[in-house]
Amino acid sequence: MPAIDAVGEFETIQRLFKPLAHPEWARGLADDVAALPSRPGYDLILTKDALVEGVHFLPEDPLDTLAQKLLRVNLSDIAAKGAVPFGYLLACHWSERCGWPEREAFVAGLRRDQALFDIYLLGGDTVSTPGPLTFSVTMLGWVPAGRAVHRGGAKPGDVVFVTGTIGDGWLGLQACQGTLKLEQDRLDYLCRAYRQPLPQTEFADAILKSATASADVSDGLMADAGRIAEASGVCIELDLEVTPLSAAADSWFAGRVDEEAALEQLASGGDDYQIIFTVPASQEEAMRREADRRHVRLTRVGQVVEGNGLVVRYRGEDVTPAKTGWTHD
Amino acid sequence: MPAIDAVGEFETIQRLFKPLAHPEWARGLADDVAALPSRPGYDLILTKDALVEGVHFLPEDPLDTLAQKLLRVNLSDIAAKGAVPFGYLLACHWSERCGWPEREAFVAGLRRDQALFDIYLLGGDTVSTPGPLTFSVTMLGWVPAGRAVHRGGAKPGDVVFVTGTIGDGWLGLQACQGTLKLEQDRLDYLCRAYRQPLPQTEFADAILKSATASADVSDGLMADAGRIAEASGVCIELDLEVTPLSAAADSWFAGRVDEEAALEQLASGGDDYQIIFTVPASQEEAMRREADRRHVRLTRVGQVVEGNGLVVRYRGEDVTPAKTGWTHD
Repeated sequence: MPAIDAVGEFETIQRLFKPLAHPEWARGLADDVAALPSRPGYDLILTKDALVEGVHFLPEDPLDTLAQKLLRVNLSDIAAKGAVPFGYLLACHWSERCGWPEREAFVAGLRRDQALFDIYLLGGDTVSTPGPLTFSVTMLGWVPAGRAVHRGGAKPGDVVFVTGTIGDGWLGLQACQGTLKLEQDRLDYLCRAYRQPLPQTEFADAILKSATASADVSDGLMADAGRIAEASGVCIELDLEVTPLSAAADSWFAGRVDEEAALEQLASGGDDYQIIFTVPASQEEAMRREADRRHVRLTRVGQVVEGNGLVVRYRGEDVTPAKTGWTHD
Repeated sequence: MPAIDAVGEFETIQRLFKPLAHPEWARGLADDVAALPSRPGYDLILTKDALVEGVHFLPEDPLDTLAQKLLRVNLSDIAAKGAVPFGYLLACHWSERCGWPEREAFVAGLRRDQALFDIYLLGGDTVSTPGPLTFSVTMLGWVPAGRAVHRGGAKPGDVVFVTGTIGDGWLGLQACQGTLKLEQDRLDYLCRAYRQPLPQTEFADAILKSATASADVSDGLMADAGRIAEASGVCIELDLEVTPLSAAADSWFAGRVDEEAALEQLASGGDDYQIIFTVPASQEEAMRREADRRHVRLTRVGQVVEGNGLVVRYRGEDVTPAKTGWTHD
């Protein structure tokens, strides 16, 4: 495809992206394609996510953390399936404001996360756009053949767990926008959670071992729980009052008058990049030990019962949330 | 990732994209990921291309042929490596003008080409953008392990071939914009060549069998020849006067005063999606027979010699083109 690019596609690829490329499979980014050997006994897991300025991120978000977020939202999808990531393809649609320093900052973020998550650039495309800065990533991972954990396997009697804390991304967006009133260190923590969410890649093997169904929490705890229920043909009961909160989220929560409404907001805000998953009740304790061993916070947020869809409870009473998440509403 | 979309991400996926999904590997598009079994003995070939309205296509391009072009520019990359495509991931960044009818038209184009090229949708993302309509595709194909044909294998003594005709895409853009004066049936032909280029997927096995180096002609015949020369550490001599032209391009060419300048324009315009490749001279006749058998037009456009870079000739004289293609200039 002809590609025009103010700074120069060739320079951008040669000087910025080539050092990030997989030493073998990316073929020096000189060939339009990556060539990836098959790995017998494993399935390839692929996921693709797009980020658009003004829609999925703020124009004032720094480009290095933006690069990290771009990789991490995709790494989160891979981890939730019990898979181990190894590489990605990247399309950069540079807007007019993206000169050389902006591209360098972006690539610095990629470099940092490639080292942190042991992944490589495999290929992609770099073009100019008259519109907003836009990226899309195709992330690849391996999982033992036939073992990927999907949304559709939850069974009545299973318990529902979530890793980490919920609501920090939603609060973090407000913190970054300056519309949240909290102590500065709380604001900093939340803003970091929004800009550099930490996907639970270390927990993928525990998911692989025991989870009956799993998904990452990107659209909101309730929405993503609801989709597991739907895909599995079961009912999931969520207990709102046990929603795990960070210390920063807790200090925001402490200032709320309507606790139920506040929890609904945190559990529908999305941008969490935690893993919600189900395990047989017999595995509950073993799973808690797996989490302890990895220093991963793990919270039982509900249970799977016969029926259909999502039931949300607050202190034992059924409630009807105004919204469950970003989409499907 | 939270995704907002005026028409509705859920509806778009369920009603439009789900019928296109691979029956097994795409998991009903319900799972954020595709899970692809390994194919022992084969390498996976991956390529990613992005198209932006106003940069890579015209706002007035119909959405069904746009979908076809999007797939085809990626299929062309796969074919040039000697690989057989089987599926793709797709990110749609819908602009405000893309309501339900536009999305239906786009999907109709995808459906047509999925049948034509025997490929399936594997996954992706659908989001809204305040900017121009934008797409990116990650196309996947299989090639026997270690056999992918790259840019770097051309040897002195090889001959240089190109499939099909050159310059129709460049003329076709002008035909679609109404700035070209030719008979209507010529204009229609050229406009079709721009909107629905036909990648040489049927020729991939011949490439696999005999080519020493290969690339698709997307940035211009001269530019892509030059990159093969560079990657292979050889010199490629291109003979401009044998550049293969369609009847429509020929009738445009007949009206030019400066034939050399006209050929340079055609050979640098890009958007051709033909394959330029090299074969040992001993294979020249065998390759011509392969092409005849497949009814593929094949033209020997040059030869590989000792040295570096690209030498362009017109009727035996070295010439210095003003530009060789879209990029690297």
